[in-house]
Amino acid sequence: MRKQVYSLLVDNNPGVLSRIAGLFSRRGYSIDSITAGTSVDPKYTRITVVASGDELILSQIESQVRKLEDVIEIRLLKDGESVFRELIMIKVRANAAQRGEIIAVADIFRAKIVDVEEDSMIIELTGTQSKLEGFLNLLKDYDILELARTGITGLPRGNGELTYCK
Amino acid sequence: MRKQVYSLLVDNNPGVLSRIAGLFSRRGYSIDSITAGTSVDPKYTRITVVASGDELILSQIESQVRKLEDVIEIRLLKDGESVFRELIMIKVRANAAQRGEIIAVADIFRAKIVDVEEDSMIIELTGTQSKLEGFLNLLKDYDILELARTGITGLPRGNGELTYCK
Repeated sequence: MRKQVYSLLVDNNPGVLSRIAGLFSRRGYSIDSITAGTSVDPKYTRITVVASGDELILSQIESQVRKLEDVIEIRLLKDGESVFRELIMIKVRANAAQRGEIIAVADIFRAKIVDVEEDSMIIELTGTQSKLEGFLNLLKDYDILELARTGITGLPRGNGELTYCK
Repeated sequence: MRKQVYSLLVDNNPGVLSRIAGLFSRRGYSIDSITAGTSVDPKYTRITVVASGDELILSQIESQVRKLEDVIEIRLLKDGESVFRELIMIKVRANAAQRGEIIAVADIFRAKIVDVEEDSMIIELTGTQSKLEGFLNLLKDYDILELARTGITGLPRGNGELTYCK
């Protein structure tokens, strides 16, 4: 059982994200995360899917996704050859005294304070999953009210031209 | 036709993300983006879905999603009352001379350079969608090799306790 990050380039048709996710649903594949946005060419959407499974499941996912008509390209993004990032937003309870302490921790991680209310603040942080976990660990003595995470996106390193054919 | 951001709290069961997305697929609802990650309580996952449609479609989505057994809570996140963020990674072709120019633009937006190769670099930026579009617009004279975006995540402002019941 391991995680695999798939980077897909798909036609930007209505409902394409639902169809990709629907394939995972019908086949019973578990998605850890799915992120999507317009690619460099607005005709295409880039979707990053993280799935877990044994080698058989992971290669089945690859071949099933490749068969979808919307899918132009599928790449397996590998550690070391790729840069992965995730965005997390954390709402933490903070009175005036705690605010300064929390800002000091946020500064170490280059996190940004994106909202401050009388009794709470929202912090935004991007990084690798281990960096995000490290930051959450330092905040565990405070009262975290809510988290929202995007899941992983990533790009392969280097400047190789991306191929737009299956 | 407008966009609606739904923030769901769901049981962290295997395949829950596929089931949520599968509902959109079966019903023919179009998903603009879907992001997901562990919530403050590891029993639950927080999923942020952005969908487009007329008022009827958007309210159908809300009631259909609410009916799913996995779904603990659904909230409509509204502009002004919420903080929305997205993460983008941009790979841009850059020789030694262009690198300095691109870093200067990145600094203005507080973007981070996360990878540099001989002929390219990868830039990471978080912000509202309009900030990301503004940054991409400034980079349009360069050769953008690839983009990856996470889609939107968000949290409501303020420190209200979140309710964990439908």
